[in-house]
Amino acid sequence: MNEPDGQLLSINTATLRRQWRLDQIIDGCARHGIHGISPWRDQVQALGLNEAGRRIRSHQLKVTGYCRGGMFPGNTAEERRLALDDNRRAVDEALELNASCLVLVVGGLPGSSKDLPGARLQVMDGLAELLEYARPAGMPLAIEPLHPMYAADRACVNTLEQANDLCDELGDEGLGLAVDVYHTWWDPKLFGQIERAGKKRLLAFHICDWLVPTRDILEDRGMMGDGVIDIRRMRRAVEAQGYRGFHEVEIFSEKNWWRRDPDEVLETCKERHRRHC
Amino acid sequence: MNEPDGQLLSINTATLRRQWRLDQIIDGCARHGIHGISPWRDQVQALGLNEAGRRIRSHQLKVTGYCRGGMFPGNTAEERRLALDDNRRAVDEALELNASCLVLVVGGLPGSSKDLPGARLQVMDGLAELLEYARPAGMPLAIEPLHPMYAADRACVNTLEQANDLCDELGDEGLGLAVDVYHTWWDPKLFGQIERAGKKRLLAFHICDWLVPTRDILEDRGMMGDGVIDIRRMRRAVEAQGYRGFHEVEIFSEKNWWRRDPDEVLETCKERHRRHC
Repeated sequence: MNEPDGQLLSINTATLRRQWRLDQIIDGCARHGIHGISPWRDQVQALGLNEAGRRIRSHQLKVTGYCRGGMFPGNTAEERRLALDDNRRAVDEALELNASCLVLVVGGLPGSSKDLPGARLQVMDGLAELLEYARPAGMPLAIEPLHPMYAADRACVNTLEQANDLCDELGDEGLGLAVDVYHTWWDPKLFGQIERAGKKRLLAFHICDWLVPTRDILEDRGMMGDGVIDIRRMRRAVEAQGYRGFHEVEIFSEKNWWRRDPDEVLETCKERHRRHC
Repeated sequence: MNEPDGQLLSINTATLRRQWRLDQIIDGCARHGIHGISPWRDQVQALGLNEAGRRIRSHQLKVTGYCRGGMFPGNTAEERRLALDDNRRAVDEALELNASCLVLVVGGLPGSSKDLPGARLQVMDGLAELLEYARPAGMPLAIEPLHPMYAADRACVNTLEQANDLCDELGDEGLGLAVDVYHTWWDPKLFGQIERAGKKRLLAFHICDWLVPTRDILEDRGMMGDGVIDIRRMRRAVEAQGYRGFHEVEIFSEKNWWRRDPDEVLETCKERHRRHC
């Protein structure tokens, strides 16, 4: 349990999105002996859903999560209905790709609203509706709490405690959490809430690092080992609960990793995963 | 209780630190009919402690907080001892200025440590030691939870719940919280923790706004009304607990407010305080 299982490394395709198209990323993962992939919807649409599925299957890659659904809040009932329709399509696509889960970035304040508690209620309502579709279809939904610095514009679910509360409220069947070290490492209740989630709710585990200083609020994530997060302790904490899923590298890095040779990035991911996760 | 009491506006001197020296800020507040000020230690040292005290008293300004003590964690016992010595001097200076409280930014990870729980224990120890000095001296200490994006390098106390837990642990006498809307607005437990703090622990209330997008993690705070925070709801929440202290404007703004005419900034603070707080 000291070193991570190298077979469990997965690449979130955002990590290479500037250098490679999805078909290139799929080939790259296969070439580097990486067995997991987590593609984004825009990349899948660009390649075509059927073609993406075919290539992923032909390389026997596991889709460790599909990115992404969510964005539930809206200023009007019509806006919220359109978001829900789009989320149902995301469920269908995730099923076609045989993804482990659909990752949900739940959305922030709609329009010019300042009503954060209200947005959170809209998220709960949207989740409840989407569950009615996703549960019978058999696609697990993974609520991903985002760092509080994204509360306004990306996700108003910002702690594992909130996500656990939502699971309590809406029921565990087909619902769980994506734990991303970047979003949650600071949380004083982190380990207690991982324990509370337990094996049944732990659907995905995302890795990267928090750089000091952080020069951009969106696109300055670090490679594992370059920052301050005790990733190994977090990986052990989720595995202590029985989590046996992949460790998915998701790095947005405008100034560094997005400018590097993608084969070098993948080699670095493998080495850093072994050493720091 | 709809509009705020204009008499309760205070200016944190960081808001004007690029344009004016402390003596100019003191004169400016007096000239604009602002009755509260919260100076930073470096500015006080530049002017001289006695001279700063004399000028503040001569204009009958209330020092609504002294910025700042804290930074408790250190890699070695010697580092922590030096920090504690410096904190005791900050208590003395706060007393000389007749400040309402010494504001504490508790510090983050020491050196290259990744042990956040360990840093939090060091903060508790440092606080306990400083209380032994500050309590008999009669200077209240205000723990300011900082936004989680500062957990690594500025403060590993990141929620009001943590700060309340520290007060429970260390005792309420001479210990409380500084609630800053910028650091806490996202917190799902915000209003519950303000209630838990109650009048006795609410020592300071800081205002500004969260901009979307936020272009710099440190120096892109907004003027009240320009962002997404429901400041009025928060002000009412602290006043509902019996808080009758000042509303202190603290804006770090490299690209905007630090480049404006300081008299215009003060006028804007007054108008926005009335309209949005």
